[in-house]
Amino acid sequence: MSQARVKELAIIGAGIAGVSAAIYAKRSGLEFDIFESKALGGQLLLMENIDNYAGIPAGTKGFELSEALSRNLSGLDIEPINQEILSIKIDKDLIWLKSQENNYTYKTLIIATGATFRRLDVPGESQLTGKGVSYCAVCDGFFFKGKTVAVIGGGNTAAEEALYLSDVAEKVFLVHRRDQLRALGYLQKEIFAKKNIEIIFGHVVEKVNGTTKVDSLILSNIKNGEKKPLSLQGVFIAIGITPATSLFSGLLDLDDSGFILTDEFLQTSSPLIWACGDCRKRPLKQLITAASEGAIASLSVYKHLRGHYISA
Amino acid sequence: MSQARVKELAIIGAGIAGVSAAIYAKRSGLEFDIFESKALGGQLLLMENIDNYAGIPAGTKGFELSEALSRNLSGLDIEPINQEILSIKIDKDLIWLKSQENNYTYKTLIIATGATFRRLDVPGESQLTGKGVSYCAVCDGFFFKGKTVAVIGGGNTAAEEALYLSDVAEKVFLVHRRDQLRALGYLQKEIFAKKNIEIIFGHVVEKVNGTTKVDSLILSNIKNGEKKPLSLQGVFIAIGITPATSLFSGLLDLDDSGFILTDEFLQTSSPLIWACGDCRKRPLKQLITAASEGAIASLSVYKHLRGHYISA
Repeated sequence: MSQARVKELAIIGAGIAGVSAAIYAKRSGLEFDIFESKALGGQLLLMENIDNYAGIPAGTKGFELSEALSRNLSGLDIEPINQEILSIKIDKDLIWLKSQENNYTYKTLIIATGATFRRLDVPGESQLTGKGVSYCAVCDGFFFKGKTVAVIGGGNTAAEEALYLSDVAEKVFLVHRRDQLRALGYLQKEIFAKKNIEIIFGHVVEKVNGTTKVDSLILSNIKNGEKKPLSLQGVFIAIGITPATSLFSGLLDLDDSGFILTDEFLQTSSPLIWACGDCRKRPLKQLITAASEGAIASLSVYKHLRGHYISA
Repeated sequence: MSQARVKELAIIGAGIAGVSAAIYAKRSGLEFDIFESKALGGQLLLMENIDNYAGIPAGTKGFELSEALSRNLSGLDIEPINQEILSIKIDKDLIWLKSQENNYTYKTLIIATGATFRRLDVPGESQLTGKGVSYCAVCDGFFFKGKTVAVIGGGNTAAEEALYLSDVAEKVFLVHRRDQLRALGYLQKEIFAKKNIEIIFGHVVEKVNGTTKVDSLILSNIKNGEKKPLSLQGVFIAIGITPATSLFSGLLDLDDSGFILTDEFLQTSSPLIWACGDCRKRPLKQLITAASEGAIASLSVYKHLRGHYISA
């Protein structure tokens, strides 16, 4: 294992946040590497249609945007290192990263490792993701204008998504395994007041049906195992989101769910580490906010390294 | 003058921040109007090449991105109202807007009126903007790798831009009309330490020369009027930026330069008004951050109107 010289910056993760950070780092003249252990684009690759990213044509597929990001990198002569970072430590004011293949040392680090939505793990879910199965109401709700959808879950996110969808869709089922919602009281009150939201308690999803698009769910009664079908066009799964931050546990301040805490300049609890995109605690998990955060993180690192901010 | 019924939201300005706000407002099911008195795109239209907006091909022209934004709007059946808002007041918990043509009333307002860079107003400047004349080092500095550039100005922004460019360009002239810089001491110290930054005190730009691209400046000595040419490929004009916020003076808290003050959710000092993009006080004036702020402002308004946040 060779030991390369110390570069100024490492970026871990090449989803849209990491790619945007890399674009700004390169254009600022920083010496850096960007690591991605999987395919470039991250969660993007699961998205069917992207219609809410200003400047990108409506109907852009996730893989198409991912290819566009790849061209952004290659156009700037940035080649992601396709290795998984297995451990990290801070020592002597440097960041030490270790992959299966090599050791690396950097002055600073931007974490852009993203998060993954928790899946139901039922038949049909994977095949129909982006074809009626979604994990984000703000992203995809608009496609279900005037249609029937279900939200799966009983927490705050599920309640918020059901309320959001109730303004767009004709009918919203809220399917929850327990006999009552875990969501905050005021959200529950609003849900109960909505005429087009119907709660189905005590049921779990057993299967998502459909060939090219979702056409129904099979629900199972949690007490007696009875099955019942539910006809609909969309299913929003809101049972949680898991940030890819296990590597940083103990090293950085995380919230109870494992999201990295940052200040407004996206600095973490370490003075050498910044975080952007879905891996950090933030109110809006959107592509456009992730891309913006990548830019902010890179320019924050620039300021840290060069001692001055670049303001315009 | 007719009085339309009260809609939920008005957006003033259809640059990238306003357009992004409109995209999110529409997809959230909000009833709104978006006003733009000039051409859609705002400052975008002055930009030659856009290379730092993740997902957009490098070399995209400002007018092309502006056209893409126009298609984003028309695809969602959003038609900007081509009227200039001349006055605004808040009364009875409503926003009252007045144009030459009409009066309008809304529950909330998003301000996305942008800002304009102060111009030198010398021959050649307009014609060569985007062809070597730039107002943003972070945006355009990369095009001048290994070349000779000048920064015009003596304040913090001029100093930061000169330092930024010194890492990219071969040689940076800093041209200032006075005998000393106004920039903060630590910035001046760094400037003096840079071998490839040369300060030309006591001179103003009289003319920008070039046919298809900038090839030189004519400088004029402020004391004796003597002219001298300066060969270079790029000129960064950093003599100030003026937010388009005169309409809101007295109504909202602004900073000394007129930028609108907001909290992290982009709410202004009025509980009914949000601001996004270049018109607000923020450290990074970038397209990608403006687009992100439009989304955040819209979803903040959504929360205000609907009583709950949409978190994913």
